[in-house]
Amino acid sequence: MPKKWVYHFEQGNANMRDILGGKGADLAEMTNLGLPVPPGFTITTEACLAYLGNNCAFPEGLWEQIKAAIAYNGTRLGREFGDHKGPLLVSVRSGAKFSMPGMMDTILNLGLNDESVETLAAAAGERFAWDAYRRLIQMYGRVVLDIDSLRFEDVIAREMAAESVLTDADISPAGWQRAVSEFKRLIEQETDAKFPQDPWQQLESAIQAVFKSWNNKRAVDYRNATGLPHDLGTAVNVVSMVFGNLGRTSGSGVAFTRNPATGEPGLYGEYLINAQGEDVVSGARTPSEIHQLETDMPDVWQAFVAIAAKLEKHYRDMQDLEFTVENGRLWMLQTRSGKRTAEAALKIAVDMVNEGLITREEAVSRIEPSQIDRLLHPRFDMVGKNAAILLTSGLNASPGAAVGAVCFDADTAEAKLKNNGMAVILVRPETTPDDLHGMIAAKGVLTKHGGATSHAAVVARQFGKPCVAGCEEIKIDLNRHQFTVGDKTVSEGDIISLDGTTGQVFAGQIPMIVPDFDEQRDLKTVLQWADAFSRLEVWANADTPQQALLARQYGARGIGLCRTEHMFMGARTAKFQEAILADREHCRSILDNILLPLQRKDFYDIFRAMDGLPVIIRLLDPPLHEFLPSREELLVEVTRLEAVGDTSDGYQKKKELLAVLGDMEEMNPMLGLRGCRLGLMRPEFNHMQVQAIFEAACEAAEDGIAVHPEIMIPLTGHFKELTMTQPVLADIAAKVMQEKGVSISYKFGTMIEIPRAALTADELAETAQFFSFGTNDLTQMTFGISRDDAERKFLVEYVNRGILKKNPFQSLDIDGVGQMITMAVEKGRSTRPDLEIGICGEHGGDPDSIDFFNQAGLDYVSCSPYRIPVARLAAGRSALVPAAEVIEW
Amino acid sequence: MPKKWVYHFEQGNANMRDILGGKGADLAEMTNLGLPVPPGFTITTEACLAYLGNNCAFPEGLWEQIKAAIAYNGTRLGREFGDHKGPLLVSVRSGAKFSMPGMMDTILNLGLNDESVETLAAAAGERFAWDAYRRLIQMYGRVVLDIDSLRFEDVIAREMAAESVLTDADISPAGWQRAVSEFKRLIEQETDAKFPQDPWQQLESAIQAVFKSWNNKRAVDYRNATGLPHDLGTAVNVVSMVFGNLGRTSGSGVAFTRNPATGEPGLYGEYLINAQGEDVVSGARTPSEIHQLETDMPDVWQAFVAIAAKLEKHYRDMQDLEFTVENGRLWMLQTRSGKRTAEAALKIAVDMVNEGLITREEAVSRIEPSQIDRLLHPRFDMVGKNAAILLTSGLNASPGAAVGAVCFDADTAEAKLKNNGMAVILVRPETTPDDLHGMIAAKGVLTKHGGATSHAAVVARQFGKPCVAGCEEIKIDLNRHQFTVGDKTVSEGDIISLDGTTGQVFAGQIPMIVPDFDEQRDLKTVLQWADAFSRLEVWANADTPQQALLARQYGARGIGLCRTEHMFMGARTAKFQEAILADREHCRSILDNILLPLQRKDFYDIFRAMDGLPVIIRLLDPPLHEFLPSREELLVEVTRLEAVGDTSDGYQKKKELLAVLGDMEEMNPMLGLRGCRLGLMRPEFNHMQVQAIFEAACEAAEDGIAVHPEIMIPLTGHFKELTMTQPVLADIAAKVMQEKGVSISYKFGTMIEIPRAALTADELAETAQFFSFGTNDLTQMTFGISRDDAERKFLVEYVNRGILKKNPFQSLDIDGVGQMITMAVEKGRSTRPDLEIGICGEHGGDPDSIDFFNQAGLDYVSCSPYRIPVARLAAGRSALVPAAEVIEW
Repeated sequence: MPKKWVYHFEQGNANMRDILGGKGADLAEMTNLGLPVPPGFTITTEACLAYLGNNCAFPEGLWEQIKAAIAYNGTRLGREFGDHKGPLLVSVRSGAKFSMPGMMDTILNLGLNDESVETLAAAAGERFAWDAYRRLIQMYGRVVLDIDSLRFEDVIAREMAAESVLTDADISPAGWQRAVSEFKRLIEQETDAKFPQDPWQQLESAIQAVFKSWNNKRAVDYRNATGLPHDLGTAVNVVSMVFGNLGRTSGSGVAFTRNPATGEPGLYGEYLINAQGEDVVSGARTPSEIHQLETDMPDVWQAFVAIAAKLEKHYRDMQDLEFTVENGRLWMLQTRSGKRTAEAALKIAVDMVNEGLITREEAVSRIEPSQIDRLLHPRFDMVGKNAAILLTSGLNASPGAAVGAVCFDADTAEAKLKNNGMAVILVRPETTPDDLHGMIAAKGVLTKHGGATSHAAVVARQFGKPCVAGCEEIKIDLNRHQFTVGDKTVSEGDIISLDGTTGQVFAGQIPMIVPDFDEQRDLKTVLQWADAFSRLEVWANADTPQQALLARQYGARGIGLCRTEHMFMGARTAKFQEAILADREHCRSILDNILLPLQRKDFYDIFRAMDGLPVIIRLLDPPLHEFLPSREELLVEVTRLEAVGDTSDGYQKKKELLAVLGDMEEMNPMLGLRGCRLGLMRPEFNHMQVQAIFEAACEAAEDGIAVHPEIMIPLTGHFKELTMTQPVLADIAAKVMQEKGVSISYKFGTMIEIPRAALTADELAETAQFFSFGTNDLTQMTFGISRDDAERKFLVEYVNRGILKKNPFQSLDIDGVGQMITMAVEKGRSTRPDLEIGICGEHGGDPDSIDFFNQAGLDYVSCSPYRIPVARLAAGRSALVPAAEVIEW
Repeated sequence: MPKKWVYHFEQGNANMRDILGGKGADLAEMTNLGLPVPPGFTITTEACLAYLGNNCAFPEGLWEQIKAAIAYNGTRLGREFGDHKGPLLVSVRSGAKFSMPGMMDTILNLGLNDESVETLAAAAGERFAWDAYRRLIQMYGRVVLDIDSLRFEDVIAREMAAESVLTDADISPAGWQRAVSEFKRLIEQETDAKFPQDPWQQLESAIQAVFKSWNNKRAVDYRNATGLPHDLGTAVNVVSMVFGNLGRTSGSGVAFTRNPATGEPGLYGEYLINAQGEDVVSGARTPSEIHQLETDMPDVWQAFVAIAAKLEKHYRDMQDLEFTVENGRLWMLQTRSGKRTAEAALKIAVDMVNEGLITREEAVSRIEPSQIDRLLHPRFDMVGKNAAILLTSGLNASPGAAVGAVCFDADTAEAKLKNNGMAVILVRPETTPDDLHGMIAAKGVLTKHGGATSHAAVVARQFGKPCVAGCEEIKIDLNRHQFTVGDKTVSEGDIISLDGTTGQVFAGQIPMIVPDFDEQRDLKTVLQWADAFSRLEVWANADTPQQALLARQYGARGIGLCRTEHMFMGARTAKFQEAILADREHCRSILDNILLPLQRKDFYDIFRAMDGLPVIIRLLDPPLHEFLPSREELLVEVTRLEAVGDTSDGYQKKKELLAVLGDMEEMNPMLGLRGCRLGLMRPEFNHMQVQAIFEAACEAAEDGIAVHPEIMIPLTGHFKELTMTQPVLADIAAKVMQEKGVSISYKFGTMIEIPRAALTADELAETAQFFSFGTNDLTQMTFGISRDDAERKFLVEYVNRGILKKNPFQSLDIDGVGQMITMAVEKGRSTRPDLEIGICGEHGGDPDSIDFFNQAGLDYVSCSPYRIPVARLAAGRSALVPAAEVIEW
């Protein structure tokens, strides 16, 4: 007995998506709910796979089952497929488990031929019948026979010209009749075969075409791009045709059960009287608002409202519906969960919980964290944006919108803000830590070079500044203070608008919409629910008291990374440079007398902002030469001075500094003298920092603030780096506390960002009380790639070619870097079961990565303040959703 | 009943080193062999540990056992400890399981005091007695009471001045008597206590001092430096004194059972009549050759010869003996395995096998691979070296000796060799691939910067050139063609001598000894034995036919790494640069028409040299900018031209090239666009290379050569890099073979040098047929350090401070990188059980690392040709020695 390949709608249900596909399962579900669905059946995905695996031949029994199902449908409608008199017409529609735009969609009106079209014309009118017939031939020609659709459009265009009409809706019945002849001639000419008059042959070919479309290039590309598996196959739905274009008691429409833009309750959609579904969406006629149906056909409206409510309640989600009214009778053609904006998703979720329709868990699980990201960033008004002049596009490196006057260096940016309160956009070939004060002063940042994780991008996200990076098309002339793109020139002071969410750069000013977190009631409600479910806490990467306050406002439960290097920028740079270049004694004096009090103040303010919550402070991490002037610029200057014979003191000093910088230079600075290595070779910086931290902590404690400092030693690769560093620092801490007579509970810990640290995490945990994964560096070293170089040179191309599914700096490489993390967690906890473990890399704000971190048993993720809401939601979901989609690399 | 803390020599044996220490165990062994050992006993290491763990108090029963043992000794000798008449004198000597220079060694003549010294004087003479007594007080004062030894030396110096003599040997009995008084006064003054007259108190304090010396700073440092554990404790040997200075029928000597320099059979050593052991080694008198004993005391000689032969046979190894003759009676004071030169080690091992004394396995196991390394490199004549002027010292980056005229750039070096056949030493601030032809032309290389694994060092070892690197003391002035060190100036053309084995640089020419592998019969014999035991094969890193031939001569079983980038240097550089900078079509044309035929010839010659053996060819690996001119030099030149207003075509071209180089520049080139990444982004280079390899292989096969090419894809981090590269290359191979009508069996494989490759080795092995660990890069990335930067900036310091036990680029970091290797081997073989696995990094020639590679299950190690003998021996040993010393990091 052959397998069951065909299911009548009555035989399926919504849980059978695997074999019936999404559309077929939902049609079955509606049928079984007693809703008016045109009779029909679904050919299973298994039939498709059997067909494809059987050298494109129907498996045993399939054709017989199809024929029987068609006969059954005809019986129910009192018609017969292939009958000339009252023919049964059907549509054939593809429908995979997941919606797939790349696949073949639909052929309508199968069953018509030269004879039955006349019968139909007699029953429903000439125009309707010939239009229906030409649609069949046109779709069949394009989809089944693979004839260029332009060839058919040409025929229609000629007919329009011949009849001197402006739209095809105005073509006469005779015109369509002529078009049918032309179409048939075209098919014969292209395929050496006539358009099949046998409806069974039409049906068989259409089903085969749907099956084959599973493997067409667009479908394969789409699955590759979205990570869908290739072995699912598609189902085929064969549905009896109903017609909305049979007169004023017929019509078609689409509707959402709630407003998909705002989430407001109530039906939202449009419909067209006397029209088929495709006419509603084609735009040839302007549809009416859905409520017009109430006036036009009150009974139908009432039935539809009841059905919509029933479906929403049944599916417990906002539905996207398609329907047709044929001679006053309502037919449901589709229901599915409706796509919606982030605002709507939140409102609908909160409303449905309040209505008792869904649980809080379901509300949290249903909202995609990536959706809500943009809610928190300023964005351009759509109308304004559409009207603006697009200059160029780059990488969408940090979301949000910014408008300002172009400016080409950090000092100018800062000055313009300070002196004139001017909004500026900083434009640089690329940014370095030297540009930080300019980035902070600017509303947004535009760079020519660098990827989504370049310095510009990382810092911009950190500070919530919109950034477009890697905009290679622009040519920056720093001397002339201008950049060009194509034939357009933008000079210093000119206003541009940056859309960091899309990567677009516009000339002039576009009006903006600025969201306020506190006003986003629904978001805050959902995040509170998410927090209640989360196992993972969300902490913040915050380097300043301002950021710390912002992080708290967004719900951070601690600071997971306070980078102290940013504290030596700006006005302090000169003194810090002096300290770096001085002998030890002088260096120590600058540190103690000048920088220590400043750092103490930094830390005090951060402790105050985070009263009661832990604050992880990372000791100085970057190589010292990053704080010094550019060696290359100095080399150019010295060379120039030498060429013109300058021998002044100024020249001599520059030449000396050049030699020092030359000594400090490194081939691969990322792997060089930084982190704990620097702490071991030049311990005075760490000593000053620890002193400042504990002085600040003691003062804060005296002021009644609950302080929980955690000192983080970066870039450890060997446990001895810890055992040689930590006791010295602990002594300094103890001395400060003793002098102040205050006792602070604190922790020492380390970053895990070098593969060797993960491999020997058991040894590290003997000394470290906490681990924080620095996944940026860990990814760089595990992959053996340098972030900035790689994104510019090959990483983007790797993703485009499918070598990597995603940029591993945006979404954690679970197969590789993930192994390192799992290993380090296991080993670390084997030595110290109560080890506190978190992550403070870029991935701390990425929902897919957060899901992995939750499974790996981390205690918290730390991300930039603006990512906290996304991370809170993701953390809540990861505790609820059994296992997120596997990210394949 | 208390534990047994004390063992008479009769109660121990050579296997009891754990509790008796090395010296005690060997004294016991000799005693039980019936040899004349002065009566004595050993206090166990357990007693030491109990003492140290018991707040420096003797454990229960120890003192009683010591007293009983002393009494027993006295009984045997007919004397009594503490007796005034015929006192028993003893020495107290430390003796841990492993020889430890940092620990307290010996106190002699314990038991003497103000009374018994008179008795001794009466019996053996005034001079002998007072000298013996002052030695006791001096040693006791220094070792037990921790008084600066200079204080005692001062007294002796004053006495010498008073008596107007030149050596302390000439001090009169009365002088020593005065010195004794002074010494006693000194002790009282320093310690507020008198020198103890009670021999039992002397003994107790001496034993406690030995126990405590286990934890003195020197001993702890020594154990830290050598990786010995801290919990072993030391034993204490208490030995009855015998005296070689009682007249012409007494004497002392040391002897080896075979010549420790050459390995020649027969006793080799020296002795002094009428002297104590310390007089033989102190150099105050010139000892006689050992055979003089035969003349002086024929009976003693015969006895000693018999004892030496017995001990060598008993220990089955060449012995280092100490003896004393007291009044015609021979006493053995020590036997231990003798230290020996590499030549001697080989000769002794081969002779002993031929004598049937040891097995071949033992012969191979006993020779330290590191010893034989220097046998193969030219070395300086010792006499000439001692007479030469040392200019400076740097890192001993590549062993061997070289003499030549100084020269400061590669082109000059090459020209001088070509035109004048001149031996040159290339001196550079540091070397780059651009200098390769100069390094090949030079006899040796000296660099100011760079560590033991800098470019200069790696290439020098590869080519067997002596190299002194990181010689920071020299100041190179490239413009003046000279370098200075201190006040000395060395100009181009001046002759210097480099000792790459020691890192020394000498002015002028030192005569050399050049070894010839073929003449080293013993070495070749031992290596053949080693090969027979080895599980690991030894292959060679060889880039040229010359190196391949050399590798075969040294016994390589294949080429594990043929680096093709060196083939684009020298005369080909210009064309390769043109190809890099050209558009694809022009590039392809240069590759096909010019470089392909040259590469084909390269490969043909290598295949011919390696007839019958596998040859692994690595596809182009370095970033392309390494082949181009220095961007920085060009920047300086362009700046200079701009400063003087040059606008010529030459300037324009340079400026354009500068822009191109700027685009190609990378922040961290080690992690950049190279290896398989380059192959994916610019596949034309790989295509040309594979074409050349297979054309050469087909030609060679036609000429009757057995070719086994293996194509290695470098720097893989993700399996898709392989699946996207390999099939294309396999197609090219197939096409060539089809065209030529020849079928070649070949393999495709990859390097494992990125942590992620090790983590996902199971996936890589689905495509790769072999793995080759690139342990240099794998170490860099696992540690997160850049080799050149790190060695210069902190790695040497890390080793000095004991943060790392060894430089991980010289000896594999088993705890970290080793985990990566073990993981990759397991995962790789889980997918492909017959996966061929080797290693081609620097560690392939390091004996400790080789032992690990053997345990990890690798199939071969590949190293530079000159390291092959060392590696063969290490591979043989690793199959025999159960587990080498654990290297601790």
